[in-house]
Amino acid sequence: MEFTLGQVAAILQGKVEGDETQKVFRLDKIQEGKDGGISFLSNEKYQSYLYETEATAVIVSEGFKPSKAFKTTLIRVKDAYTGFTQLLEAYSQFTKASIMGVQEPSFMDTSSSMGENGFRGVFSHIGKDCKIGDGVKIHSQVFIGDRVKIGNNTIIHPGAKICSDTIIGNNCEIHPGAAIGADGFGFAPQEDQTYKAIPQIGNVIIEDNVNIGTNTTIDCATMGSTIIKKGAKIDNLVQIAHNVIIGENTVIASQSGISGSTEIGKNCVIAGQVGIIGHLKIADNTTIGAKTGVIKSIKKAGDTVFGYIGMDMKGFLKSYSIFKNLDVLENRLRELEKKP
Amino acid sequence: MEFTLGQVAAILQGKVEGDETQKVFRLDKIQEGKDGGISFLSNEKYQSYLYETEATAVIVSEGFKPSKAFKTTLIRVKDAYTGFTQLLEAYSQFTKASIMGVQEPSFMDTSSSMGENGFRGVFSHIGKDCKIGDGVKIHSQVFIGDRVKIGNNTIIHPGAKICSDTIIGNNCEIHPGAAIGADGFGFAPQEDQTYKAIPQIGNVIIEDNVNIGTNTTIDCATMGSTIIKKGAKIDNLVQIAHNVIIGENTVIASQSGISGSTEIGKNCVIAGQVGIIGHLKIADNTTIGAKTGVIKSIKKAGDTVFGYIGMDMKGFLKSYSIFKNLDVLENRLRELEKKP
Amino acid sequence: MEFTLGQVAAILQGKVEGDETQKVFRLDKIQEGKDGGISFLSNEKYQSYLYETEATAVIVSEGFKPSKAFKTTLIRVKDAYTGFTQLLEAYSQFTKASIMGVQEPSFMDTSSSMGENGFRGVFSHIGKDCKIGDGVKIHSQVFIGDRVKIGNNTIIHPGAKICSDTIIGNNCEIHPGAAIGADGFGFAPQEDQTYKAIPQIGNVIIEDNVNIGTNTTIDCATMGSTIIKKGAKIDNLVQIAHNVIIGENTVIASQSGISGSTEIGKNCVIAGQVGIIGHLKIADNTTIGAKTGVIKSIKKAGDTVFGYIGMDMKGFLKSYSIFKNLDVLENRLRELEKKP
Repeated sequence: MEFTLGQVAAILQGKVEGDETQKVFRLDKIQEGKDGGISFLSNEKYQSYLYETEATAVIVSEGFKPSKAFKTTLIRVKDAYTGFTQLLEAYSQFTKASIMGVQEPSFMDTSSSMGENGFRGVFSHIGKDCKIGDGVKIHSQVFIGDRVKIGNNTIIHPGAKICSDTIIGNNCEIHPGAAIGADGFGFAPQEDQTYKAIPQIGNVIIEDNVNIGTNTTIDCATMGSTIIKKGAKIDNLVQIAHNVIIGENTVIASQSGISGSTEIGKNCVIAGQVGIIGHLKIADNTTIGAKTGVIKSIKKAGDTVFGYIGMDMKGFLKSYSIFKNLDVLENRLRELEKKP
Repeated sequence: MEFTLGQVAAILQGKVEGDETQKVFRLDKIQEGKDGGISFLSNEKYQSYLYETEATAVIVSEGFKPSKAFKTTLIRVKDAYTGFTQLLEAYSQFTKASIMGVQEPSFMDTSSSMGENGFRGVFSHIGKDCKIGDGVKIHSQVFIGDRVKIGNNTIIHPGAKICSDTIIGNNCEIHPGAAIGADGFGFAPQEDQTYKAIPQIGNVIIEDNVNIGTNTTIDCATMGSTIIKKGAKIDNLVQIAHNVIIGENTVIASQSGISGSTEIGKNCVIAGQVGIIGHLKIADNTTIGAKTGVIKSIKKAGDTVFGYIGMDMKGFLKSYSIFKNLDVLENRLRELEKKP
Repeated sequence: MEFTLGQVAAILQGKVEGDETQKVFRLDKIQEGKDGGISFLSNEKYQSYLYETEATAVIVSEGFKPSKAFKTTLIRVKDAYTGFTQLLEAYSQFTKASIMGVQEPSFMDTSSSMGENGFRGVFSHIGKDCKIGDGVKIHSQVFIGDRVKIGNNTIIHPGAKICSDTIIGNNCEIHPGAAIGADGFGFAPQEDQTYKAIPQIGNVIIEDNVNIGTNTTIDCATMGSTIIKKGAKIDNLVQIAHNVIIGENTVIASQSGISGSTEIGKNCVIAGQVGIIGHLKIADNTTIGAKTGVIKSIKKAGDTVFGYIGMDMKGFLKSYSIFKNLDVLENRLRELEKKP
């Protein structure tokens, strides 16, 4: 991607103070600016870098007044931080959406179809009876099973695996190596102490605007559907078991695991390495601290829980501050016991 | 797959009460039954759905007496739940076993061989001197290294990686993205504080009827073999380090990690996010609660352990119930200290 | 690989006591030695196996005196253990380095280049403007995005994913399914409770001699770089978030997670299933015990920390020994309270 400063200013509704025909093709931190890069100056603390930067251009806010000479070209916008963010998004969007067409060899069964402006990368596989919308990007080495439906403008990154019967909405992003819709972990104990697999014939439904992290696993339902509701954001290496429901706009950080049939409300924030056992209900707006183990349902919306088995944050921290000095407590007790 | 109700009844040794020529091609929950689907009614609580369902057929038990009119067709069997389970298994088995042949482009070295009725998916790789049995399904984008041996009727799901010298038995299932037999994590500290890799020249042996979850990693032995014994079931995102032995019919839930050279007995149940350090022995029939950290061997068969470093369950829960209210304990102590 | 005993002796600067023309092609444990294998005897405890082994040859130390008759051929070297280790390394190095050439179909954009003596496996993908050094092995089904730079003699194992703009040094090893440089987990909360993705336009830099484990995920920086410094060794299923810095020769065991912008010093040892929250600094030479949760920076170099939120090891163990018997403590307290 390459833009003139005039084009950048047009996107940001700003003004170039210098040569509009200069070209930029990279976004730089101001302290690391190089020729061809564009930076921003929002926090006054970084002002000194402006006078040294080798970035071709720097975005500044309307009211900014330089106190020394500088080499770079200013683009003046209403608010520099917002402006840079807009540029970042435009750049990122452009990069992700501009890839199009079909790379060969790739595999798509003749019974399946893709919409317009899509991309199918080399060594990707699309099975039977799939319906894939417009602007969908299926990167290299992606696996898509049979009867999968994908909405518009969804991106499936390299090596992700979307197993049969999965349904994915619009504007989702599935990161590399994530595996959606593989068999859930269900086994019936037999009399001879062996286990027999319980057939997992359900699927996974991922609604619109969902983000699934790298190497994350989401199992299909035993029957019915494992559901990730719209706007949910799931980080890397997360485990979502069969028949789980994740509510709208709920965020789950890396390496957390949600066991079978648990239902998590909307707008929850679940930190990293949390474990939640099966068949629970977690109320809306719950916050769960890192490494927490949750073994009972959380019924009151808006609670914050933290600790080994899901105490509330305040109670846990109170206990833990004493636990840290339990030996002092025991000594005081021993003194008491010595008294007549 | 499509069956007539007559065919279904034959499989289940039951009787159709209505038109035997009707066709079904899907298994539905009774409350979500649609045309072309077959459901079951086992729990009386769900009886009301029978009178409303749009499923083509419903499996019921011998003694069942409807109390209202209904539209669906009944298939009467000895026990409805068992019958449905049989059908589920037949369906699932049929779906998994019916795929056959070779999709191109795929890669198999000329020194390797596959048995009859197998499947090799597109973009799969099979290295040198591999011996693969009958009915083995190697799905798209699977990697199989050199000198790998696989028994009969094993299924390797898309994108799984079976590294060189791995041996896999009969009737195993390796889920998407699992990686079997990559180098173990062994490094010798050097005098200059760098580390030197210790060559990992062993392999992994997976016996019959083993299930390995999605994106799980099982490292090869430094020398000798990492062994997963027959009937073991391992969930998603589990880490099994070099030279570990997992006993027969042992179950390990998601995101647990077993460190190097630890030996786990048979018929153990290990819950999610458990960590077990290296060089331990865990007795047969041990149950380990979720998130438990195990730092010493468990010698008595049949124990249940739980907690931060492997206390027994009862002891841990007793302590934890006090720990939760340690501030109350401290207040009582303070009152005592004030006394003359 | 196949060597005569004479060739082996030459590599080890040792002497064959018997027929130098015998051939070996496998490294065996002495107790499992078979024809064609070579073993070693270092620990006197294993001496009895020497008299029974069917290995073709056994490496022994200069001073070793057999006390019985045996069938195998001895290779005498200065120190048997060191000698075997050398052989192990030679074998491993040879095995890894000997693979060369290009397997088809594979994909490399015409704008990219590879040095000499490299390997590109079948179904691998290399994007635009990549510069790949000499002796680099890119195994089957590897994904390499655009503008990736890789130094000399680095090995990328099957199915690993190296996203665009990643820079990797010399002599690194990236294990199967690892994903380097995918988007970090950054979302800005919006007023309507949805989240908006913050574009992640930085990259990952991996310096020389780094080892990345199977299915591990290392996210690209939001801006700038996520950096893994030279000599760092990272195990399987580890999560490294955006803008993290891992110091030289730091070791991180399986299933640990490092949150965004945290900076870890050099020569640290981080055990398994550790979690470290974002924006911390961990001093050089820190040791962190298994399952530890770290929520504040560690400023003193050389500390050992362990426990739920990063207490020091000694303090934690003191507290935990009381915690395990808190019910006894409460009983004693109750006795005191009863006193007049």
